[in-house]
Amino acid sequence: MDDIIMITSEEPELNEPILIEGLPGVGNVGKLAAEHLVEQLKATKFAEVHSKYFPPQVLLDDDGVIRLVSNDLYYVRGEGERPDLIILVGDYQGLTPEGQYELSDHMLKVAMDHKVKRIYTLGGYGIGRMVEEPRVLGAATSIKLVEEMKEKGVVFSKGEPGSGIVGASGLLLGLGKVHGMEAVCLMGETSGYFVDPKGAEAVLRILSALLNVEVDFSALQDKAQQIDVITSKLKETEAPQEKRREDLGYIG
Amino acid sequence: MDDIIMITSEEPELNEPILIEGLPGVGNVGKLAAEHLVEQLKATKFAEVHSKYFPPQVLLDDDGVIRLVSNDLYYVRGEGERPDLIILVGDYQGLTPEGQYELSDHMLKVAMDHKVKRIYTLGGYGIGRMVEEPRVLGAATSIKLVEEMKEKGVVFSKGEPGSGIVGASGLLLGLGKVHGMEAVCLMGETSGYFVDPKGAEAVLRILSALLNVEVDFSALQDKAQQIDVITSKLKETEAPQEKRREDLGYIG
Amino acid sequence: MDDIIMITSEEPELNEPILIEGLPGVGNVGKLAAEHLVEQLKATKFAEVHSKYFPPQVLLDDDGVIRLVSNDLYYVRGEGERPDLIILVGDYQGLTPEGQYELSDHMLKVAMDHKVKRIYTLGGYGIGRMVEEPRVLGAATSIKLVEEMKEKGVVFSKGEPGSGIVGASGLLLGLGKVHGMEAVCLMGETSGYFVDPKGAEAVLRILSALLNVEVDFSALQDKAQQIDVITSKLKETEAPQEKRREDLGYIG
Amino acid sequence: MDDIIMITSEEPELNEPILIEGLPGVGNVGKLAAEHLVEQLKATKFAEVHSKYFPPQVLLDDDGVIRLVSNDLYYVRGEGERPDLIILVGDYQGLTPEGQYELSDHMLKVAMDHKVKRIYTLGGYGIGRMVEEPRVLGAATSIKLVEEMKEKGVVFSKGEPGSGIVGASGLLLGLGKVHGMEAVCLMGETSGYFVDPKGAEAVLRILSALLNVEVDFSALQDKAQQIDVITSKLKETEAPQEKRREDLGYIG
Repeated sequence: MDDIIMITSEEPELNEPILIEGLPGVGNVGKLAAEHLVEQLKATKFAEVHSKYFPPQVLLDDDGVIRLVSNDLYYVRGEGERPDLIILVGDYQGLTPEGQYELSDHMLKVAMDHKVKRIYTLGGYGIGRMVEEPRVLGAATSIKLVEEMKEKGVVFSKGEPGSGIVGASGLLLGLGKVHGMEAVCLMGETSGYFVDPKGAEAVLRILSALLNVEVDFSALQDKAQQIDVITSKLKETEAPQEKRREDLGYIG
Repeated sequence: MDDIIMITSEEPELNEPILIEGLPGVGNVGKLAAEHLVEQLKATKFAEVHSKYFPPQVLLDDDGVIRLVSNDLYYVRGEGERPDLIILVGDYQGLTPEGQYELSDHMLKVAMDHKVKRIYTLGGYGIGRMVEEPRVLGAATSIKLVEEMKEKGVVFSKGEPGSGIVGASGLLLGLGKVHGMEAVCLMGETSGYFVDPKGAEAVLRILSALLNVEVDFSALQDKAQQIDVITSKLKETEAPQEKRREDLGYIG
Repeated sequence: MDDIIMITSEEPELNEPILIEGLPGVGNVGKLAAEHLVEQLKATKFAEVHSKYFPPQVLLDDDGVIRLVSNDLYYVRGEGERPDLIILVGDYQGLTPEGQYELSDHMLKVAMDHKVKRIYTLGGYGIGRMVEEPRVLGAATSIKLVEEMKEKGVVFSKGEPGSGIVGASGLLLGLGKVHGMEAVCLMGETSGYFVDPKGAEAVLRILSALLNVEVDFSALQDKAQQIDVITSKLKETEAPQEKRREDLGYIG
Repeated sequence: MDDIIMITSEEPELNEPILIEGLPGVGNVGKLAAEHLVEQLKATKFAEVHSKYFPPQVLLDDDGVIRLVSNDLYYVRGEGERPDLIILVGDYQGLTPEGQYELSDHMLKVAMDHKVKRIYTLGGYGIGRMVEEPRVLGAATSIKLVEEMKEKGVVFSKGEPGSGIVGASGLLLGLGKVHGMEAVCLMGETSGYFVDPKGAEAVLRILSALLNVEVDFSALQDKAQQIDVITSKLKETEAPQEKRREDLGYIG
């Protein structure tokens, strides 16, 4: 079988769309943010990507109907100031370095076929402690983009993240730059210990300003509150494990 | 060498056969069930599959004659209400995600060559504690199949198994669905700590009703009793390790 | 680069040669035996095999000159009752299952090119305790070969080795059988804790009788004595770790 | 995508250049030495190598602009007695044995395209204890080269390094020898516990004499002093872990 199988249900004609990526990673910040955007904009799935670089696994819906794990591509047409969007979400990232490279290369080819003008990748930046007001850190393929992002409130802090960006959120920038594409990574601060809707909201607030998207954050805020309840219960029973902090890299 | 080598000793002409898969997994439930069916129906081996995705290993028979580890395909012609069957059993599943995908894809191609009408995959569902009356949980490629299975006593329980189905029993459904095939996974509850003939019997009771197969369960019941003797001895010496429960996923 | 690179320095014309394999494994029994045979018969190297399935490593001779790790093929012409021989020795086995399969497949193709009549693979059988008089266990591709070997003193013991034979010594039989070749594995009992020249001697005594080779064992016996000195010193300082016994499989 | 992607910004015409390799490894000795040479000679980057054998990672500069991890090729033209040089530095070595072989093979093909006359690979030799006056050990593809190196003060010590040389510094010699190329590995002694500019200086002193290069070592010496301050502080708080010594191999 092919290493990567893309099943396309529709070939939307889009006008210089923006690609947004949010796959599982630190605190699932990127995935939560991108999925929230898909829901808010009622985006339409047009392609499913399966691959032997994903786990050999099916997931079940509430009825007991299975689906093979996948990465999925959605689109939504622009409206007013809002550009056309392609949104990449999914169950997993590639399991191996080879898989990561092949999958990101595949997505970039899809992006180029659709004449994608710019890429935003979304992720979390694990800092090893709880954070009340998460900053959104940035990285970009050019200094011009860095300057543009700074104006929108994205933080560029020398030496953060120190070990670079690992995974799809990094590779889409790295391989994208090799192909001459403009790309920005937005990383919401997160403890790294829990799924973090608060980090996702922070990232999405910046992104929605960049894209002129109106987003209702109440669903994310509800999830954040549920997580808060759980974590405050945990805090009562055990002290934070500060020592683990050095293990936290950025994968997103 | 080719990644997968199939050595075919016979090309049986079959009439819309049903494919049944039972490979090693949790409690070896699927393997025990499928092997018991091969024995009961005196099925005939028609193909051996070797692969570099299996361990580099030979097994010895009682005389000291070796055979390369394999997955084997058997067939048995229908009789009365019983349809033609192809049964897939074997020593191992693919060792890597890539191997899992390639082997399942290969088996699906064989199935399509033989115009297989439906697939049943058999496995165990590890629940981390001893179980007296194992339920048989199900998953399927369509809601229509789910309804059909419910009528036959298969349990569809929201959120079980929570992490989906990993391995051949899942992939044959997931990739099968991509190819437009009908497929059902039957999972017998099992502790996950021991080879479990009782779980295999539960699965096979459902399957034999679905296929109008008459099965004598005495050999499986003998094996179950032997396991019971061993486990009750173990229980006397050590308390059950409840803590390990969260490690148990489903692989089948 | 090619997955496997064979550099051939000579193309000897041989008369239905016997292939003997002795690569690193349990107690290095097979490797010691095959290397001793190369030395005793003053066999001539005719091919070096390099591969990305081996470690990315060079070894140094006493002068500081490097050589890339390899598997090497030697030949020696027959004399009187002794047949022509090809002997396979080397630094490593393939690091992955894929590598194991590809390398064994490659060696079998070389064997078929040279019209090899029979294969003997040499290995150790780890039994987890010191052994004074190591037996030589056998496995073969046919019952006829098993009977022939029994007559020569090879032990065929039901259930030994219980987990089959892993690695080149197994695969050359397993894949060889698929290609219709005659092959025997000879396994010298060994503790599995040390490099074991005594096990190698036991294997080589059987093999030399099978091949009508005269072998002087004094060099192997000297090595065995050196190991004995080391192990008896170790015995004084620590008790044997019987618990580890279950970890010992057979790799040869 | 291709397994290895080379992006060439310039095709310099060079006169029988010498290839120098310094990639990450034990104490980062080789990398530090080669990077220092690039700086001192103001060498010009002419090619970037990306690969799925590297981690799926981008690194950030101080401004927040990313670059995909890479191995980079620099050149500098000769002057007087100094020959033309190609210098290979980079962020990572290949992550797998296959990657190591493929990347070294790629670099050798580049070297052959440029008619490289000789290769020097630079690395560290971990000895598990602090060392005041690091020796520079050698390994080479021929006895003639060994003799030539001995005259320049390179130490060839029987049995050092005992386990050979693992990684690019070894493979460029091993695969280079297969292709008939002259190559030498220079290994600076280092504890193996820290990044070691002192080991790098020792290697570079030998290399600069071999190549008639004038090198100012003050920047390396400053780094060495910083490391000394850190390690002496550590010494006060904990005793050296002598036990770890056996874990140290050579990777360079």
